[in-house]
Amino acid sequence: TSTISCKAWLQIQSVWHFCKEDTAKLIFALKAGLAILLVSLLILFEASYQVFGLNILWAILTAVLVFEYTVGATFNRGFNRALGSLTAGILAIVVAQIAEFSGHVAEPIIIGLSIFLIAAITSCTKTWGSLVQYEYGFRVMLLTYCLIIVSGYRMGNPIRTMIDRLYSIAIGGTISVLVNVSVFPIWAGEQLHQQLVQNFHSMADSLEECVKKYLEDGTEKRSIDAFPDEVTYKRCESILNSGPRLESLANSAKWEPPHGRFMHFLYPWSQYVKVGVVLRHCAYQVMALHSIVHAEIQAPYKLRVAYRSEIQDASNQAAELVRILGTSISNMKLSLKNSHIKRLHSSTERLQRSMHLQYSYLSTPTVESPVPLAKLSSTLYHLPHQKGVVELKYQEKNSNLAESIERPHEIMKKHMRRIYSWPSRKVDAFEEDSETSATELFVRNRLRALESTAALSLVNFTSSFLEFVARVDHLIEAVDKLAKMAKFNDEGGVMQL
Amino acid sequence: TSTISCKAWLQIQSVWHFCKEDTAKLIFALKAGLAILLVSLLILFEASYQVFGLNILWAILTAVLVFEYTVGATFNRGFNRALGSLTAGILAIVVAQIAEFSGHVAEPIIIGLSIFLIAAITSCTKTWGSLVQYEYGFRVMLLTYCLIIVSGYRMGNPIRTMIDRLYSIAIGGTISVLVNVSVFPIWAGEQLHQQLVQNFHSMADSLEECVKKYLEDGTEKRSIDAFPDEVTYKRCESILNSGPRLESLANSAKWEPPHGRFMHFLYPWSQYVKVGVVLRHCAYQVMALHSIVHAEIQAPYKLRVAYRSEIQDASNQAAELVRILGTSISNMKLSLKNSHIKRLHSSTERLQRSMHLQYSYLSTPTVESPVPLAKLSSTLYHLPHQKGVVELKYQEKNSNLAESIERPHEIMKKHMRRIYSWPSRKVDAFEEDSETSATELFVRNRLRALESTAALSLVNFTSSFLEFVARVDHLIEAVDKLAKMAKFNDEGGVMQL
Repeated sequence: TSTISCKAWLQIQSVWHFCKEDTAKLIFALKAGLAILLVSLLILFEASYQVFGLNILWAILTAVLVFEYTVGATFNRGFNRALGSLTAGILAIVVAQIAEFSGHVAEPIIIGLSIFLIAAITSCTKTWGSLVQYEYGFRVMLLTYCLIIVSGYRMGNPIRTMIDRLYSIAIGGTISVLVNVSVFPIWAGEQLHQQLVQNFHSMADSLEECVKKYLEDGTEKRSIDAFPDEVTYKRCESILNSGPRLESLANSAKWEPPHGRFMHFLYPWSQYVKVGVVLRHCAYQVMALHSIVHAEIQAPYKLRVAYRSEIQDASNQAAELVRILGTSISNMKLSLKNSHIKRLHSSTERLQRSMHLQYSYLSTPTVESPVPLAKLSSTLYHLPHQKGVVELKYQEKNSNLAESIERPHEIMKKHMRRIYSWPSRKVDAFEEDSETSATELFVRNRLRALESTAALSLVNFTSSFLEFVARVDHLIEAVDKLAKMAKFNDEGGVMQL
Repeated sequence: TSTISCKAWLQIQSVWHFCKEDTAKLIFALKAGLAILLVSLLILFEASYQVFGLNILWAILTAVLVFEYTVGATFNRGFNRALGSLTAGILAIVVAQIAEFSGHVAEPIIIGLSIFLIAAITSCTKTWGSLVQYEYGFRVMLLTYCLIIVSGYRMGNPIRTMIDRLYSIAIGGTISVLVNVSVFPIWAGEQLHQQLVQNFHSMADSLEECVKKYLEDGTEKRSIDAFPDEVTYKRCESILNSGPRLESLANSAKWEPPHGRFMHFLYPWSQYVKVGVVLRHCAYQVMALHSIVHAEIQAPYKLRVAYRSEIQDASNQAAELVRILGTSISNMKLSLKNSHIKRLHSSTERLQRSMHLQYSYLSTPTVESPVPLAKLSSTLYHLPHQKGVVELKYQEKNSNLAESIERPHEIMKKHMRRIYSWPSRKVDAFEEDSETSATELFVRNRLRALESTAALSLVNFTSSFLEFVARVDHLIEAVDKLAKMAKFNDEGGVMQL
């Protein structure tokens, strides 16, 4: 039932998320309608039409093109449009004057050449590395230049055209920005904040689900073709793919004035992006765990289950810590206590220690000789306070392992089939060969190699998890730096060391 | 010297790549200039100006807005603009007629309301999932609607305005597309093809570099803070981030007519994206290898070096196979032979087998008792044809390990410092405690756990590599499917099984 309730919870979450996002989109749409309506009224009302005339068409154009989803993006686009138009206007007037003085024959040639040059230069610069973000500005510059110089040539008075165009752009841009800021503003900074927090929680969920799946009995199909469709996997992948979105949001957020919870100037939006990078580093490790869970060669279920409590405990601690970090950012209050970190480290160490036991235990050849009890207990000697527990567990594991001895043969068969199924001729060749006794030895030996590989899968899982924990330490540092830069309120004063 | 020559090679490659890309950008810029110049000529020449008048301004606008880098993107944008304008024009005429018949008072109200509605609806739909790619079309639709209905209201005759606008858009769009296709066309399909091939080669390079780094003596600093700056790591990350680019290129490529090497209709561009997805799955595994190479807990150098030949061999085979796949796509000829796959699988198996040896060897407690020779030789018994080699190697490893016994203590110290350095109070607490003899036992035990963890790092590396090889099999399948769908020429007929 916990699986069902979990799924239902995920469903509800996604519907809620969808609705919330949809509401925001609906509000955005209504706002856009309002802004464009307001600009249109200037031309629909007789009084304002007498003043501005048909130039207001440009204001409508500007409003349509400048109105963006977030406040920051609208500011950015408005700035691009204003600066692009202004530069182009000045350039166009200069060139138009020069062209006018060079006589009737040369004038169109100069104008044509200048259009070609401006088009080539703006097209070239807008594809250049760091200038790509101003692409819109360059496009507007080219547009305005062409319009002013051509209509100036045909109708005379380019200065008049330029001034008309500039003030109508100013009207359209101002109305757009005002509507965007004053009616239910959607701040890029807020979005960035929420996206980052969501990434933290997604990663914690993904880690937990992944570990849960690993400790389940793997009766269902685990294959590379199927698992990219899993919810948890997709969630993890969406964290990895969120980089460009975080960057563009941070880029927009820099254009926004202080607002809401982000009241001080020069709020460290770029540190959000950096925390996102460290978070992605952790997510790569979760991805590695996913790949182990879905690998073709697996540790037997009984073996995995024997270490259930250690793995479960450590992963729960890690997920909780990640969640606490997420909530800290969300509330802008550091609620991370030393005890959380201590608990994570101690449960990680417990896992590390028990892996050592498993390691020296598993490695003894399981097929021919029983486990040398004497040796193991000499290892246990160094763990006086845990001896009772461990010995109990050891017996448990021993019986588990006996049952699971058949397992590797199946895996082996599957693996053999996989390796050799591709060139199908090889399968026959292999089966024929295996009847001779020399290759039988070889096969048995290969089988043993595979058996240990299967058992090693558990070790592999654990080490990848340990690396994850090591990276979480870096994550704590990054969040700590963010908290200092953004002046989060300290709660209990844990982080000042 | 090989490192220097390798770096120089990378340098040359990147400069060459930059130049090639720059030339393409320059050509694009000149083409854009040419297209816009051609449209402007229509207004600069007296004869054509007499025919079209100032409406050609819209053609210039269209040319500026439609002209994109690749042929496919230009087609796509032109189509969006044409369809958006047409829909908006028809709508505007219908609404204008209705408004005209409803009297002088109602007319501006109906027009205002319709503008608000159209603005809200287009803004809403363009943010919806699968419609985001037609964002430009919706924007143009809103623009055209506003312009036609408003100028129709003020100047009368909306049908005339619409026709003027449509034919000028047609002129601008046609000239843009013609110039784009006829002068040094930059095909999105070709770009997609090259990008995918480059990803294959990047992954092969990244894998090789990663393995090389792993087998080097790790005297330099390996830390999470430094390694994201490495060339190989960045290359791998760029593969992982190339998803959106591949998708947008495939999206554009679908708009392109058959051309160059891609002569048949319905060329399977979407399969390129799928191959890219499988490739990214492989790259995640290379990422996992990177993380092991840069982990804080490392297998001792002597131990890593003992398995150098197996690891090196297997990784070289894998990298070669990936390169062959890349070259196959590049030449559109399947040059993959069964022997390549066989060689990779046999060297992988050799690695797997030798890991089995290492596993049963390493796991015997190195500190107190020497390695039980009898047991190991009983394991070796099953490898009659390799016995000589392995025994030699075993002795070699034994002496190596003896030298490296000191190593784990250093790692341990480092690790302890790391775990406890964060809350600095803990360090003191730990140091005080360690003077009591009870915890000394505890520490010694913990040290042993760490020792085996360090040795396990090698095992971890190997299993991750094995999983990489398993995923390469899927990659072969995906490329095979692509070859069939795109009708690559078979060379030697290897893949038909």
